[in-house]
Amino acid sequence: MARNYFCQDENLIDKMEEECGVFGVYATSDDKVDVANLTYLGLHALQHRGQESAGICVNDKGEFTNRRGMDLVTNVFDEEALEELTGQMAVGHVRYSTTGSSLLSNAQPLVTNSIKGELALAHNGNLVNGLEMRKNLEQRGSIFHSTLDTEVIAHLVARSFKDDIIEALTHSLQKVKGAFSLIAMTEDSLVAARDPHGFRPLAIGKLEDSYIIASETCAFDIIGAEHIRDIEPGEIVVINEEGIKSKYYGERTPYNFCVFEFIYFARPDSVIGGQNVQLAREEIGRQLARETDIEADLVVPVPSSGIPSALGFAEESGVPYKKGILRNRYVGRTFIQPTQEIRNLKVKIKLNPIKDIIEGKRIFLIDDSIVRGTTSKQIIRMMKEAGAKEVHMGIASPPVAYPCYYGLDTSRRQELIAAENSVEEICDHIGADSLTYISQEGLLASIEANGYGFCTACFSGDYPIGEGEGKFSLEC
Amino acid sequence: MARNYFCQDENLIDKMEEECGVFGVYATSDDKVDVANLTYLGLHALQHRGQESAGICVNDKGEFTNRRGMDLVTNVFDEEALEELTGQMAVGHVRYSTTGSSLLSNAQPLVTNSIKGELALAHNGNLVNGLEMRKNLEQRGSIFHSTLDTEVIAHLVARSFKDDIIEALTHSLQKVKGAFSLIAMTEDSLVAARDPHGFRPLAIGKLEDSYIIASETCAFDIIGAEHIRDIEPGEIVVINEEGIKSKYYGERTPYNFCVFEFIYFARPDSVIGGQNVQLAREEIGRQLARETDIEADLVVPVPSSGIPSALGFAEESGVPYKKGILRNRYVGRTFIQPTQEIRNLKVKIKLNPIKDIIEGKRIFLIDDSIVRGTTSKQIIRMMKEAGAKEVHMGIASPPVAYPCYYGLDTSRRQELIAAENSVEEICDHIGADSLTYISQEGLLASIEANGYGFCTACFSGDYPIGEGEGKFSLEC
Amino acid sequence: MARNYFCQDENLIDKMEEECGVFGVYATSDDKVDVANLTYLGLHALQHRGQESAGICVNDKGEFTNRRGMDLVTNVFDEEALEELTGQMAVGHVRYSTTGSSLLSNAQPLVTNSIKGELALAHNGNLVNGLEMRKNLEQRGSIFHSTLDTEVIAHLVARSFKDDIIEALTHSLQKVKGAFSLIAMTEDSLVAARDPHGFRPLAIGKLEDSYIIASETCAFDIIGAEHIRDIEPGEIVVINEEGIKSKYYGERTPYNFCVFEFIYFARPDSVIGGQNVQLAREEIGRQLARETDIEADLVVPVPSSGIPSALGFAEESGVPYKKGILRNRYVGRTFIQPTQEIRNLKVKIKLNPIKDIIEGKRIFLIDDSIVRGTTSKQIIRMMKEAGAKEVHMGIASPPVAYPCYYGLDTSRRQELIAAENSVEEICDHIGADSLTYISQEGLLASIEANGYGFCTACFSGDYPIGEGEGKFSLEC
Amino acid sequence: MARNYFCQDENLIDKMEEECGVFGVYATSDDKVDVANLTYLGLHALQHRGQESAGICVNDKGEFTNRRGMDLVTNVFDEEALEELTGQMAVGHVRYSTTGSSLLSNAQPLVTNSIKGELALAHNGNLVNGLEMRKNLEQRGSIFHSTLDTEVIAHLVARSFKDDIIEALTHSLQKVKGAFSLIAMTEDSLVAARDPHGFRPLAIGKLEDSYIIASETCAFDIIGAEHIRDIEPGEIVVINEEGIKSKYYGERTPYNFCVFEFIYFARPDSVIGGQNVQLAREEIGRQLARETDIEADLVVPVPSSGIPSALGFAEESGVPYKKGILRNRYVGRTFIQPTQEIRNLKVKIKLNPIKDIIEGKRIFLIDDSIVRGTTSKQIIRMMKEAGAKEVHMGIASPPVAYPCYYGLDTSRRQELIAAENSVEEICDHIGADSLTYISQEGLLASIEANGYGFCTACFSGDYPIGEGEGKFSLEC
Repeated sequence: MARNYFCQDENLIDKMEEECGVFGVYATSDDKVDVANLTYLGLHALQHRGQESAGICVNDKGEFTNRRGMDLVTNVFDEEALEELTGQMAVGHVRYSTTGSSLLSNAQPLVTNSIKGELALAHNGNLVNGLEMRKNLEQRGSIFHSTLDTEVIAHLVARSFKDDIIEALTHSLQKVKGAFSLIAMTEDSLVAARDPHGFRPLAIGKLEDSYIIASETCAFDIIGAEHIRDIEPGEIVVINEEGIKSKYYGERTPYNFCVFEFIYFARPDSVIGGQNVQLAREEIGRQLARETDIEADLVVPVPSSGIPSALGFAEESGVPYKKGILRNRYVGRTFIQPTQEIRNLKVKIKLNPIKDIIEGKRIFLIDDSIVRGTTSKQIIRMMKEAGAKEVHMGIASPPVAYPCYYGLDTSRRQELIAAENSVEEICDHIGADSLTYISQEGLLASIEANGYGFCTACFSGDYPIGEGEGKFSLEC
Repeated sequence: MARNYFCQDENLIDKMEEECGVFGVYATSDDKVDVANLTYLGLHALQHRGQESAGICVNDKGEFTNRRGMDLVTNVFDEEALEELTGQMAVGHVRYSTTGSSLLSNAQPLVTNSIKGELALAHNGNLVNGLEMRKNLEQRGSIFHSTLDTEVIAHLVARSFKDDIIEALTHSLQKVKGAFSLIAMTEDSLVAARDPHGFRPLAIGKLEDSYIIASETCAFDIIGAEHIRDIEPGEIVVINEEGIKSKYYGERTPYNFCVFEFIYFARPDSVIGGQNVQLAREEIGRQLARETDIEADLVVPVPSSGIPSALGFAEESGVPYKKGILRNRYVGRTFIQPTQEIRNLKVKIKLNPIKDIIEGKRIFLIDDSIVRGTTSKQIIRMMKEAGAKEVHMGIASPPVAYPCYYGLDTSRRQELIAAENSVEEICDHIGADSLTYISQEGLLASIEANGYGFCTACFSGDYPIGEGEGKFSLEC
Repeated sequence: MARNYFCQDENLIDKMEEECGVFGVYATSDDKVDVANLTYLGLHALQHRGQESAGICVNDKGEFTNRRGMDLVTNVFDEEALEELTGQMAVGHVRYSTTGSSLLSNAQPLVTNSIKGELALAHNGNLVNGLEMRKNLEQRGSIFHSTLDTEVIAHLVARSFKDDIIEALTHSLQKVKGAFSLIAMTEDSLVAARDPHGFRPLAIGKLEDSYIIASETCAFDIIGAEHIRDIEPGEIVVINEEGIKSKYYGERTPYNFCVFEFIYFARPDSVIGGQNVQLAREEIGRQLARETDIEADLVVPVPSSGIPSALGFAEESGVPYKKGILRNRYVGRTFIQPTQEIRNLKVKIKLNPIKDIIEGKRIFLIDDSIVRGTTSKQIIRMMKEAGAKEVHMGIASPPVAYPCYYGLDTSRRQELIAAENSVEEICDHIGADSLTYISQEGLLASIEANGYGFCTACFSGDYPIGEGEGKFSLEC
Repeated sequence: MARNYFCQDENLIDKMEEECGVFGVYATSDDKVDVANLTYLGLHALQHRGQESAGICVNDKGEFTNRRGMDLVTNVFDEEALEELTGQMAVGHVRYSTTGSSLLSNAQPLVTNSIKGELALAHNGNLVNGLEMRKNLEQRGSIFHSTLDTEVIAHLVARSFKDDIIEALTHSLQKVKGAFSLIAMTEDSLVAARDPHGFRPLAIGKLEDSYIIASETCAFDIIGAEHIRDIEPGEIVVINEEGIKSKYYGERTPYNFCVFEFIYFARPDSVIGGQNVQLAREEIGRQLARETDIEADLVVPVPSSGIPSALGFAEESGVPYKKGILRNRYVGRTFIQPTQEIRNLKVKIKLNPIKDIIEGKRIFLIDDSIVRGTTSKQIIRMMKEAGAKEVHMGIASPPVAYPCYYGLDTSRRQELIAAENSVEEICDHIGADSLTYISQEGLLASIEANGYGFCTACFSGDYPIGEGEGKFSLEC
């Protein structure tokens, strides 16, 4: 039993949605596949990685057509839009970001036309020397049209002394530092590359003779493609009419895979390093149960993110699992009138307690993480007002005390409740009767991903890369 | 154990969403409540009862403003729209319907201005003599602008020999037959009425001194209102500056409440006749377990509708509960390219199996109902392709063999698989290893709603009203 | 020389645009004409009669499709919209109205479906007993959905004791009083009717074997149709597969044709009663010249409405005609920032003086009419600031001192400057050096329309119908 | 009398609208002027120079906000849009172009953010070495996002070895060749520059202490600003808090002002080189009369472009001026059904003959120019079908036989009828009874613009710049 009787908050839910998802397809000439449609389906499966913008760029014998919009994939693309996107290759992207940069000019794929040729880029991650590189390029007369790290790569390619666009891209990736899982499309090739630490997921699949690249394996499942393998840290893969080639463009450092992909980001049916995500989360819940001895009548998840660990927790502890909180399926861009003073309204728009289940019970409430503590506080108050006798909080991650520089929004991270407060203080703040975080060792032991090491910087402050090496920039 | 080793299908999921939800508020002069905002929140809580159109009509000292749109509540109304809706009373409506009548002119509230005064109507249910009444009115020179049953009531009011609009409305309700839970707003009163059989839910709540009317109690919870009581079959309630008055406008027949509200329609946190819906569904699951002796390794729900009964089933049977199917949260108006031949694509857009959980297991799959059998067939095939050793299907309702004339879409009901096929045939059709429906007695025994009797016409063909009494019409 | 040295203003320009235009086509089965396209072109030619809304209803073997929008014809209908409008008959309408009633629900054609069958109505004019009839219908239980006089006719038809829809329509027209030029479309017939005074224009044309009905002959010219004759006051014409039939549904009173159609409304290339409108306006200008002896260096029109009479005036008087004022072709819904204090800005958005022409000259400025005087005042001030030595104003109509109840917007008419002021006072108000109105006799003598008498109520207050006969209502 | 009895065509009307208009304002700190509103009004006055896109960029203490749209100024900007555009400086642009480049990415002002700072550019004209410069920049790694010549200038500025942005801009203008009237806005200065030949107009005005730059003086008139002087060929003017400074950035060549600005482009109330445009056009008409001896009953202009010269022609010749053709004011993006076979439909959508004026007469028809001859042919046919006895065509410009490389669309110029045909052949083609072009000497003698020389390349093929000096590029 690790950190009991303490506390912290959660809006990681909000923040964690700031990731991106990428997808690419290269159809062999013999396959009759509709590349735009496959990308549409793949992005739909990756929608959880970003809901703000969606884009698909197709390549029809060297002619690029790019369509992007600020909405869900299924709203940006209708039948007519998809029919106009014809070709033999496609790259797609979904994105979420902070308000400041929520502009169409920041939507991806980013398509540029330079002396090296047309280039479409779809990017998940964050460069730590992005700002520095950008300043250097501007110094030499480059004009930027977005705040994307991706555009830094595009300018590096345009100015590279290498004539060949693939070589220019490889050369450019050697210059940037940070987290990136990148899909690039040139006039004749589809390229996938992963940073030397492997922070963000990226995998290769195959659909008959066609190659598919995607952030997560769930995008292969929806189109019936087979998952071949994960792309390795520091690897660049080039697919064109000569087939598929791979090389390492830089030093091979050990994996520093983002552990939050297993805790929260990735979709439960995805497989990373051979490990199914849902099963990992259930095991984290079982481990959390082993680390606490709080007595409770019911285990209740904060839906949806707390469900898998709550199921594991219930299994291990023998405490009955109950759906004591209902999630409203229709929460969109709900507008809440500021004049309306209704208690807990903000949380009740999303989550509703079932009084007849909760009343008079000692509840062990499970969530995946706490960021600012605001939502946890509201949920616990809502539970108590619905009649809960005690509310004990269990968290499927250690305290998040340090900002992430590799793809999560850091602007809100100053507000990390665990940065300045002890677990007791957090527990007190959110009004829980106790607060249990899983230990870092327990967490890592729960995930059996072959050959994967993990970045735990947000818990420990041990950054695998960055602080000494350049200014952090902020893009996903 | 009732009907085992047989089968049927489910698209009831689709069909069941064709209900409507109604909401009304009357603010006392002392309360400073924003009636449009309360209605917005109430309709948001009732969104599961209809996603096609949403509308709010406010009454500001006798002046009506009505705004309707073909979308979710949160999309139809933004901050600006709500600010323009000021008043002391409001009526709101959410609706789903079949394609044919999916027109803005069919969205509600319906507002008419006749010699009796302004009248806003929001209606849930279906009149069985609606078409007959409509023809009679047209014969006498009335001009209709929609295909709504609600407009029949509006014309009856306009032509009533009673001068007072409330009396004219009461008089009109005596003439119509069928299912209706109605909220009406006149220049000075808010009126709520329920048909003599009480087919559809309707309840009264209170927020300080203001009165609230809603289809379900979950709409009270979100705004912090207190649930006072359900409106009785045959009762009409009038709220105005003289206070609240109630009377019975017709004969009081026993309750024939739609049992599907407990099986599928109503929100799990709502309370009907004192019975919480989620708990009723868990009990139905427990009863289903008692009625079968199939051996299985795992209980897996078809999300989201099968979850509560699967939890109850697992509890009673001791078979472990597992989330073996994931539901994609972002399913909107997904467009599926007809040219793309991907196996099980239609179902995979919504539901995704978790292979590592399912593989090699005997699965007891639980859903709430089967309508056409198409979706069940696809899910079972998908489960088997994901490696399930056996797939046994359990259904939390008896076979749906007869169309509903009281508020569900009957146009698709010709396709009811249980109308023409035995349970064995259905089981065979959907490809399950066994099929178990709960018995009607078991179902009814699981629901402890005080004083409520149930309409089970869709299982038994015993229609409480209708066939001999006039033509059925089709509106929700 | 009639009324010299006096004055009045003009915004009749604005007001006069509140007319409507109607168009109908009946294609014989042998003609392969695209009725929607002909109606589109006809309405385009009639666009000057109303710019606020446009609508086309087609009839395809009894099935009606109606499309209306709040914009110019060419914006409401694009290629796709027109392709969806197929049939053998069509009715179209363009409309301008005051802000209050500027709603889509007031756009025409009005289509109603009653016991008599489907009926589409397109209407130009104003009923003087419209309000009275409406109240009577409401008393008997009719529900109205617009503020249109046209809807009164629709309800009269629905309630008529005549079973046949044409007879019911004829019967209804006998009950209404006022100005109307009406086109009606039933399931099998196209009907055109003109009120017994013939206030508004209406003509029949022929395109090969197909019949065309239109407000003005310019709508025949654009489609290459031949103008057969004008429809007579009190005449109703029915066209169907039995051919064309005509009868008089009421007493035949002499023509009281709106003289403002010749002064301002009608398009210059239209022919009414055999008289070309442009030539009539030139003759009015010549007559105005005969009635004044003001000395001037240049005759300058207020464009566009003053151009024809200025040309006639210059010809008769020998004073040179000059385009001293330019009209901006791109005036749409220009937004003028209220904070910007620029002299004469409102008029300069539309009209611009050419300083090098005006400077130091005595200008005889010609406009068609003065309503409120505001615009005239601004134009004269603008001319003087541009260097005009003297500005004498000549008006191609007598003072407008009385409101119109037959199709013009009367709500602004309280502001008629000539209602309360002498010509000298008006001249003083607008800042002209002199003001000359044409005399009523001179005006009427200038127009040679065979068999046509004129309504001059707005000059004389002699209303051919109305004041004793019922309440005025306000619709166009 | 010059070229009589011959012919040529006109669609110059269409083509000539491919110009651009520019506007800029610098407010002194003491003036309380709304720069966005002034720009809106100025662009409205310049709308005739381009109707495809409109844009305004404001500068609020160094912060730029740019709004552009594909529509008329009054449609792109409404009250809300203007209110959001606050600042002390503004630059605006209106544009028309060929279909190919009709994209929002080609709308101006073009705003770029480079190492030199923010820069907004609004540009009228065409660079003859634009394509060459662009290729050179791309070779060095610049990435272009539009096909605009303007972007070439932006990249030259970003890469200039001069640190100061004004110096970098001056330096860049020395490198480009062709026609340009440019307004630039930096963080603290407003800059105006005109190419060394002065092909396109550009003038400075003053509104109290604020400076205004505009393509034409009509933009000063609408806002009440005073016209100070024209900007000289090769001059660059910088306005900032130190006041206004001017210098010549290149050699001063004599004026080669586009003569078509006087014939067609410029607005009649504008003044260029001290010459009012309307008066110049009237004088051109008088000169045309002196150059012909054709006998006719009436002079009729093709509206609107032929009106001023027709007035001058009538005055000089004594032949009566008549409005025999009416122009439809509501011609927008009219859609003409391809299936409808109506004679002369395309021209009748815009222009309508007045039969009662034309019939039996010998018409002298006047237009400003003939390009392809298609429209002239249709108009003449339409006039003859309306009963004209003879149609003689007079053109207010010499034959247009050579494409323009300085700002007009050259893509259509291959189709110039005068390039390959004699005047007799053109006359025959368009079906006129005679065709008279004004002589080049007569044309130039009619325009008294102080110090201005003219480019007559489109008549003579004598290009002041270009053919030997680099590739032509195509932008306006």
